[in-house]
Amino acid sequence: MAIGDVPVVETAQFGRSVGVVQTRSITFDDPLELESGARLAAPWTLAYETYGQLDERGSNAILICHALSGDAHVAGLHSPLDTRPGWWDAFVGPGRAFDTDHYFVICSNVIGGCAGSTGPASVEPGTERPYGSRFPFVTIGDMVAAQARLLDALGIERLLAVAGGSMGGMQALQWAAAYPERVGGVLAIATTARSNAMTIALNAIGRQAIMRDPNWRGGDYYSGPVPADGLAIARMVGHISYLSEQSMAEKFDRRLQWRPAYQYTVEPEFAVESYLDHQGRSFVRRFDANSYMVITKAMDYFDLPGRYGSLRRALGRTGAHFLVLSFTSDWLYPTSESLALTAGLRQAGRPVIQIELASSKGHDAFLIEDGTMTPIIAEFLAGLD
Amino acid sequence: MAIGDVPVVETAQFGRSVGVVQTRSITFDDPLELESGARLAAPWTLAYETYGQLDERGSNAILICHALSGDAHVAGLHSPLDTRPGWWDAFVGPGRAFDTDHYFVICSNVIGGCAGSTGPASVEPGTERPYGSRFPFVTIGDMVAAQARLLDALGIERLLAVAGGSMGGMQALQWAAAYPERVGGVLAIATTARSNAMTIALNAIGRQAIMRDPNWRGGDYYSGPVPADGLAIARMVGHISYLSEQSMAEKFDRRLQWRPAYQYTVEPEFAVESYLDHQGRSFVRRFDANSYMVITKAMDYFDLPGRYGSLRRALGRTGAHFLVLSFTSDWLYPTSESLALTAGLRQAGRPVIQIELASSKGHDAFLIEDGTMTPIIAEFLAGLD
Repeated sequence: MAIGDVPVVETAQFGRSVGVVQTRSITFDDPLELESGARLAAPWTLAYETYGQLDERGSNAILICHALSGDAHVAGLHSPLDTRPGWWDAFVGPGRAFDTDHYFVICSNVIGGCAGSTGPASVEPGTERPYGSRFPFVTIGDMVAAQARLLDALGIERLLAVAGGSMGGMQALQWAAAYPERVGGVLAIATTARSNAMTIALNAIGRQAIMRDPNWRGGDYYSGPVPADGLAIARMVGHISYLSEQSMAEKFDRRLQWRPAYQYTVEPEFAVESYLDHQGRSFVRRFDANSYMVITKAMDYFDLPGRYGSLRRALGRTGAHFLVLSFTSDWLYPTSESLALTAGLRQAGRPVIQIELASSKGHDAFLIEDGTMTPIIAEFLAGLD
Repeated sequence: MAIGDVPVVETAQFGRSVGVVQTRSITFDDPLELESGARLAAPWTLAYETYGQLDERGSNAILICHALSGDAHVAGLHSPLDTRPGWWDAFVGPGRAFDTDHYFVICSNVIGGCAGSTGPASVEPGTERPYGSRFPFVTIGDMVAAQARLLDALGIERLLAVAGGSMGGMQALQWAAAYPERVGGVLAIATTARSNAMTIALNAIGRQAIMRDPNWRGGDYYSGPVPADGLAIARMVGHISYLSEQSMAEKFDRRLQWRPAYQYTVEPEFAVESYLDHQGRSFVRRFDANSYMVITKAMDYFDLPGRYGSLRRALGRTGAHFLVLSFTSDWLYPTSESLALTAGLRQAGRPVIQIELASSKGHDAFLIEDGTMTPIIAEFLAGLD
């Protein structure tokens, strides 16, 4: 059972939890040059977590990249009293898909985020106020360039693999395009090499909802109330795209939440309405609206074939092996996107395993379906050793 | 080519326009008892249009029911200078699917609407102010009961057929359930007999966006600014559900609207963003937010099997023949909904023709695909004669 986008511990069919972990951070003293031509001023910070041990040759490092609303906390608990583990806990730990008895796993919060890395809510260097509207828009390429700086600092020259679902998969693909020699394997899960009109539209509605919230004030809202209503609506739109018609029917059907009969009022009555309302409210407590703007824009700009001329050119310089996974009921990044990616990889001469997994869970499947995904991921990683 | 949900005249492959038509209205002097137990006070009004001539036996009447944002203006122009015809113009006219040389076609704006029929923006009887928050919530059953009163007034005892797409299809099915002897044929297009969690969720987000707009003021906003931002967001969410991934790719792909390169700003840049923004703005000029609330709630309450115990019981008392159409790329009311409806009709022993039409246009297909739909509709209607 999944609550929102966080699978609870009991879902794990494989291995053990990594236990209690801590988020660390690293600060860089020179600016980060951005694809837009702007720069992210120094000092800037990345929050990250690691699990397992780096081997002596530095050859067992795996970078996991998070999705839109994720963070560096992939697995384990921050304290023994935590009720929720990291967002991919069922996949990362001893004996799990990313086996921390064998691999050194790293995950960092993206730049532009709001979970420890420098983002719009961070204090702008040289001032005493948050960036707000002055935070530069970033790209998936910029997120990855920042991660490369983290790996440099950790002494990791080459990744055994880079993995991610959704926007995390975009970053994994970007790694192979931007740092072709630093990546041995790419796991691109429930993702695309090129954001399309539908995904841009869904993100755009979220941004419109935020910008039309009177508390938005152009992004400079940190001294007052935040644009909570706009961000909540954005999250609700997101959640619809993360579920499938079938998973919604399974979870909610037409069940009424509080009363046995229709109330004929404006208030939410159906369980699915209550769910969306809850998701909106809880997201507002943990996420910054400006980060939502910046990160969704980065996703919309993502277009590997557009950026490099073709997918073949984008992914033809790496020696990496690719694992491309999709899910039958995912309508946000459907299998057709994976097939387009796979076709490009084949044209580029890259070894690629492409698998469509049966799931009723929609896009959220990549967070939940550890049962079917674990053996596939484990075998793919073992083949890279 | 379709602009928003209105097909332009040139799409028609069959027949001729009905020419210039007028919307009329009829006012009822006794209250309408509603399914909720509330009543719609007298006087209340229905706006309607008719096309063609009622024959002497009164046996050639077809009622067309509109969808969420539709109105009584199905076909033709309101003046020779109009640039846009009615919303189903390609389907209604001499030689068209609903051939006005043979049939007398009627369409009325639903109660709760904002295009001439009594709705939340209407003056509440006994007061000098609009209903606003005091307008009673209605059901699809109430909309149909109001239409039955219109037919009574027009002297039409029995409909040759009742037809509609989307929420119009819900009304058509409701007709067969509530007035089993008054309907000869039912055309249920791109619709369902039972709103599911996904469609409720999409409607709920629209309502949340409206209610979180500070101008909403509980629905009593007519003396001040309207909740335009909330309604615009609701419409944008709607538009995403009316299109398909493929139709969005065909219309917009990743095309930039104004500049040749990314601008790295919060402003809309992609063509699909500009489209959604335009749809939101234009909807606000013609639609009332309270009507959006009331009508989407009516859709969410719609559940024929729940209301009657089963689909078999709901549709087993009519002698009507059924035509059930769906479209391959419609993910709002996909073919699975049509198949569930058809299964219920077969259990009820009703003659049913169920056809899935190939279209890339998503849910909007029912407004656009006159080329494939016209021969099917025409043949079905001819079989009812």
